[in-house]
Amino acid sequence: MFKAELSDSSILKTSFDAISSIVDEVQIQTDSEGMRLDALDRSHITFVHLELKASLFDEYVCDVPEKINIDTGEFMSVLKRAKSQDRVIMSLDEGNFIITFEGDATRTFKIRLIDIEYDNPTPPELEHPASFKVHFGILKDAINDIDIFSDKIALQVDEDYFRASADGEFGDASVKYLHGENINTQEKSLFSLDKIREMLKADKFSEEAEIGLGTDMPLKLTLNMVTGDGKLSFLLAPRLESDE
Amino acid sequence: MFKAELSDSSILKTSFDAISSIVDEVQIQTDSEGMRLDALDRSHITFVHLELKASLFDEYVCDVPEKINIDTGEFMSVLKRAKSQDRVIMSLDEGNFIITFEGDATRTFKIRLIDIEYDNPTPPELEHPASFKVHFGILKDAINDIDIFSDKIALQVDEDYFRASADGEFGDASVKYLHGENINTQEKSLFSLDKIREMLKADKFSEEAEIGLGTDMPLKLTLNMVTGDGKLSFLLAPRLESDE
Amino acid sequence: MFKAELSDSSILKTSFDAISSIVDEVQIQTDSEGMRLDALDRSHITFVHLELKASLFDEYVCDVPEKINIDTGEFMSVLKRAKSQDRVIMSLDEGNFIITFEGDATRTFKIRLIDIEYDNPTPPELEHPASFKVHFGILKDAINDIDIFSDKIALQVDEDYFRASADGEFGDASVKYLHGENINTQEKSLFSLDKIREMLKADKFSEEAEIGLGTDMPLKLTLNMVTGDGKLSFLLAPRLESDE
Repeated sequence: MFKAELSDSSILKTSFDAISSIVDEVQIQTDSEGMRLDALDRSHITFVHLELKASLFDEYVCDVPEKINIDTGEFMSVLKRAKSQDRVIMSLDEGNFIITFEGDATRTFKIRLIDIEYDNPTPPELEHPASFKVHFGILKDAINDIDIFSDKIALQVDEDYFRASADGEFGDASVKYLHGENINTQEKSLFSLDKIREMLKADKFSEEAEIGLGTDMPLKLTLNMVTGDGKLSFLLAPRLESDE
Repeated sequence: MFKAELSDSSILKTSFDAISSIVDEVQIQTDSEGMRLDALDRSHITFVHLELKASLFDEYVCDVPEKINIDTGEFMSVLKRAKSQDRVIMSLDEGNFIITFEGDATRTFKIRLIDIEYDNPTPPELEHPASFKVHFGILKDAINDIDIFSDKIALQVDEDYFRASADGEFGDASVKYLHGENINTQEKSLFSLDKIREMLKADKFSEEAEIGLGTDMPLKLTLNMVTGDGKLSFLLAPRLESDE
Repeated sequence: MFKAELSDSSILKTSFDAISSIVDEVQIQTDSEGMRLDALDRSHITFVHLELKASLFDEYVCDVPEKINIDTGEFMSVLKRAKSQDRVIMSLDEGNFIITFEGDATRTFKIRLIDIEYDNPTPPELEHPASFKVHFGILKDAINDIDIFSDKIALQVDEDYFRASADGEFGDASVKYLHGENINTQEKSLFSLDKIREMLKADKFSEEAEIGLGTDMPLKLTLNMVTGDGKLSFLLAPRLESDE
């Protein structure tokens, strides 16, 4: 039996807003510790990992581990229908993932489970030479600034600044942010703007993003709930300069 | 002579938002008692009836009954231009329906009258086995919930609950609402989601909707102004299960 | 050296919202007195003139006059990225017009200068028989009112009223506004609705518009900053009745 109840749908909404734009299908794994998923997009560029601990939920029951294979777009369509004051209850029956919103009315949605074998991807273990925190809003701004002139974005960090920049045919854009952290290296890597934009849809998960950066290494972006009850992280493969 | 003056355009706006999405042309009939219209959509699925009593208006004059044939889309375009603080004055000249908004400026719109004979449809007299009230918001939510999985909606009522539901290929959705009324029957009928959506555009008319339901009978949806000065009602033909 | 610093981007934004919809490229001329531009749209229908005095800026340096040729669309894309609390700094390097926004982060945009000879147009000197002021909002409303029935708008003025009107196939619209000014003539001219709409994008420049009108003469629309630090004006060629 699996049942998970939440008084607030916003963490689910913001997570799956990002996840559903990265992958079409996922396998959610549940056990007594909570819910988690690992997924890799079709072009093998973005890896996403979500962890929601049992402690996040008002009520959480999972006596036998379950593997819930669903279409992320359908789950997102359902989550969008939640109102802020609705309680959210997730459960399972024979062939469906069941989401119930309790408010003035009781609204029940059954999403068909996808009957496939699913190999959960394992992310590479990476040690990033530079790790630091940035306000989520700074990242969102940078994406939209860069977008005026380019579809690629260079992220770099040095002792003082975190920078996002791009040189385009018609102009250049750069964002410079005093990170205030103890960093003793200079790292720089190039990424697809669209791919970063997908990850940043999870903008309600956390106000702060933890960034792991290394020259020509994948970007690691980690969002931690302040309560410690949940984590959403991404690994994004770099673009090589010769891609330009 | 016909002249009708209102300090608030919202009842006209919300009524014609629904009416203009159902029928392209209408005949508004005016007499000393007020304004009314009856119309049937081209596919003969939705019947709409609007009644605005003379008492609704700040000033109302109609010494000779008039028949005002107009294009509903044009009237709606004009109504959208009203500001919340504008006075609205409706009148007639030889060939035009005249709408005036009085605010900082005086803004006058003349919509050409359509010169056709118009047979006003008469709605069938129906006795619905179940009648009950539902918050308008519950209906609007249900439409958008069901829309995720289907383009048809089953409405049903029993002793305790009003339900809206649909089974789709990729999932099911259902809304269950404790109606709190004295109903001793079970009724169920199937409708087109799009057709219900058209009627529900009149969402500013009333906070409560009165529903008449009977198995495989048309749906009756009645909106009454709290002041008793106006009424907007719809009859919607059911879809047969074999339509699926 | 050229450097101009502002604590508020709204005047630039609203000016270039209009300018970029009228002309694709402009030459901004700077000298010790301030910045200015004169431009004529490709079809020679709209002339636009912008003047921003040195006194408007928190800091303004221009020891040698400069001619800054830029793409208006790119400049507008950059200006849209300014936040209300950002400081805006404009400067030049060898081949770029540089715009910097200073807030939580420092965001720098370099727009390529266009390397062309540019003949600055000189507007015709016109004496309008009628000049008067109108709230900007009245004009914006009139445009949207008229738009329901026509793509041309007649502007006229007499001793008492300023009027905007159009007769269309399916209806007429007219706006009448008591101007309260001392005017002893009657003037009327016809204009393209789309061309007026372009000018009215500068709706944050000033709450009041000064209108110069003469029968079959170009429309003059002047926006003055209340502080006297800036002016944005337009001349719009009339349409002849036979255009209809």
